[in-house]
Amino acid sequence: MSLVVQKYGGSSVADAESIKRVARRIVETRKAGHAVCVVVSAMGDTTDELLDLANQVSPLPPGRELDMLLTSGERISMALVAMAIANLGHEARSFTGSQAGVITDAVHGKARIIDVTPGRIQTALAAGHIAIVAGFQGVSVDTKDITTLGRGGSDTTAVALAAALEADVCEIYTDVDGVFTADPRIVPSARKVPVVSNEEMLELAACGAKILHLRCVEYARRFGMPIHVRSSFSAHEGTWVTDAAYTGFRRPAGLGGDEQQHEGETVEAPIIAGVAHDRSEAKITVVGVPDRAGKAAAIFQAVAEAEINIDMIVQNVSATETGLTDISFTLPKSDGQTGVQALTRLQDTVGFSGILYDDHIGKLSLVGAGMRSHPGVSATLFQALADAGINIEMISTSEIRVSVVTRDDQLDAAVRAVHTAFGLDSTQGEAVVYGGTGR
Amino acid sequence: MSLVVQKYGGSSVADAESIKRVARRIVETRKAGHAVCVVVSAMGDTTDELLDLANQVSPLPPGRELDMLLTSGERISMALVAMAIANLGHEARSFTGSQAGVITDAVHGKARIIDVTPGRIQTALAAGHIAIVAGFQGVSVDTKDITTLGRGGSDTTAVALAAALEADVCEIYTDVDGVFTADPRIVPSARKVPVVSNEEMLELAACGAKILHLRCVEYARRFGMPIHVRSSFSAHEGTWVTDAAYTGFRRPAGLGGDEQQHEGETVEAPIIAGVAHDRSEAKITVVGVPDRAGKAAAIFQAVAEAEINIDMIVQNVSATETGLTDISFTLPKSDGQTGVQALTRLQDTVGFSGILYDDHIGKLSLVGAGMRSHPGVSATLFQALADAGINIEMISTSEIRVSVVTRDDQLDAAVRAVHTAFGLDSTQGEAVVYGGTGR
Repeated sequence: MSLVVQKYGGSSVADAESIKRVARRIVETRKAGHAVCVVVSAMGDTTDELLDLANQVSPLPPGRELDMLLTSGERISMALVAMAIANLGHEARSFTGSQAGVITDAVHGKARIIDVTPGRIQTALAAGHIAIVAGFQGVSVDTKDITTLGRGGSDTTAVALAAALEADVCEIYTDVDGVFTADPRIVPSARKVPVVSNEEMLELAACGAKILHLRCVEYARRFGMPIHVRSSFSAHEGTWVTDAAYTGFRRPAGLGGDEQQHEGETVEAPIIAGVAHDRSEAKITVVGVPDRAGKAAAIFQAVAEAEINIDMIVQNVSATETGLTDISFTLPKSDGQTGVQALTRLQDTVGFSGILYDDHIGKLSLVGAGMRSHPGVSATLFQALADAGINIEMISTSEIRVSVVTRDDQLDAAVRAVHTAFGLDSTQGEAVVYGGTGR
Repeated sequence: MSLVVQKYGGSSVADAESIKRVARRIVETRKAGHAVCVVVSAMGDTTDELLDLANQVSPLPPGRELDMLLTSGERISMALVAMAIANLGHEARSFTGSQAGVITDAVHGKARIIDVTPGRIQTALAAGHIAIVAGFQGVSVDTKDITTLGRGGSDTTAVALAAALEADVCEIYTDVDGVFTADPRIVPSARKVPVVSNEEMLELAACGAKILHLRCVEYARRFGMPIHVRSSFSAHEGTWVTDAAYTGFRRPAGLGGDEQQHEGETVEAPIIAGVAHDRSEAKITVVGVPDRAGKAAAIFQAVAEAEINIDMIVQNVSATETGLTDISFTLPKSDGQTGVQALTRLQDTVGFSGILYDDHIGKLSLVGAGMRSHPGVSATLFQALADAGINIEMISTSEIRVSVVTRDDQLDAAVRAVHTAFGLDSTQGEAVVYGGTGR
């Protein structure tokens, strides 16, 4: 008997009808002979409503109490899912994060999972019951207080629990069919990707693809847990995220969706897994920095001390006659004000002439494990953008990724141009000529 | 330093403004130098909203899951109260029933408290923190599942916790000023009673006074915990419920409200503590029962097996020429259908001629420890009702109580007439002449 961990997000359990639909899906999986452990998020807008209540009583609620409050959201949804399953004649038991053995550190609001000791879940599954677990929450090993895991927490709960239970697969149900070569709202011809490697998924998640959270993919890679991202609205196979993506991938028996099963197939890594985009960043340019050792270090030290994660960095070639240079970097828009303030305090000591803040940038990222063995990807990318009349403001690369910054109002056109240039459109063939001299 | 346990009901924490008001009240108590442990119910209509959700996904939700669902209600209110206190600059920590050590049996929906092990509460109080505890909930000693205590559960939590913590007083905050000689909505001249004994409060609660639940008073009597019932909207002293009511009652220092303090006063037990009324019962009459041994036993055996609690019983004098008698009893309206069905199945074996069901009755109860030493109470009662033209259908008495059943549309008039006849109206003196030959 296979063991499946399924995770349903807030939109999948938004109301009574959705909960009943999810319950039918869970029961179908159980009736197909699998042991099933389900992780649920809070219903639809519950978390926002609870946050609103908290703000009404306190402008800055203590983290411990905020976690106590927010965790009631999953408590509600998991109990309702268990009831809906019982109403279909199957036995279900709901468990809080604490009851499920999700042990975390004590950092309220963004706790990290330290260990998972799912004894009660195993007992329930051994009795033939369907276990329903609250996502996003755990209990601190030190204080015994209830914690929340922060953004993407329910996905992470599901993968961590799947790993601890040695499940065959962790299914993440969402409102789209899987991972696409680009956001279908921007590129209507985007195709669903059948398999993607963990490293590709990590790059895609880091570059703005919202389908899976970074921490969840990191966890899956660490424990070798295959993730199946699929729609809760269809029985179609979605996207498998697994390190075995290109080395002989075997779907767990009976868990591949309703499409044709491929046994232990080996797929050649495609050159491009997808085109991600991100509008959540802004750019700060420090103008007229004296081109001397230690100046750049002082600037990035100040930014780091403000606990801001920067992404891309560009330093212009120094204008030799002035001895001055410009340094640009990108950071989350939400950290923009903090960043500008931290740097302004530095102006006299570092001696730069000014700070420019630009929150009208967009970032396009091309991700694919096949880039390693295919030179010329960057050249094709730059040519496609040039042909579309789009100016590139910054560039950064990793082994399997190329990212460029453009104006934000040109980002959609850029994504479409690049998607077409790399033959990713669903109606096109894959004949792409790579010119140029490598990346 | 005194230790106070305060309990706030759903109407006291119905919205953000109410929660902030309750927080100010709690902080005032703390600032007066007392250690404070607070028990809260779910906000206003939360429990009903959750029950509605449950009914949308399942007509008959499993008790375990219903308890898991409903307990999120107090989780929300207690976290919000803790946040509001923190916003006033005081340290507060919220605890679920399980974290507070409220150990119960495993009867979901109406669990009984087996033990209270409030180690975490004691640690919080010792650190000078205000402890906020979820009412109405506990954890099963056997299954480790979350349970709810059923009706009046938050009051019971407060008293049980107060007993385990050896608190000086358990304050039950409500939306009225205390225990009244009658429901002020029916008798505008009803007076607040300063002290009442546990046995009187038990009779009043059992007879329809909704201010305190039976189980909570039983618990207080068992552990000798004084209860102070008072309004969360004023600083006035409310009603003290204590076995020491008439034997030398001493209020804990500084915990008597804003009125004049009386040290160790001895109050003579008043003849009448109050007039309670109840419209929640119905009457079943089994007509034409053969007047032979075992017939009545068979009838009440059947009712007991249907798990129905009956209240009053009247058997008419047998009409000797027919050898038949009528048996009437009262039971909760909510059990009416079940009761009629249980008896109908019995008709052939017992051989009675029919069943009458009447859900238009009302019950008036006169309660007072002073009845023991004052004969004539019943006679005064019956005369008052006769003078008001109200017919008595059934009578039952205990040592400190007389109850009568009337038509439901005459109940309000009956309560007013009796309240006046016993000199309980606030504008009247207490000169009442007791005639008659005792009860």
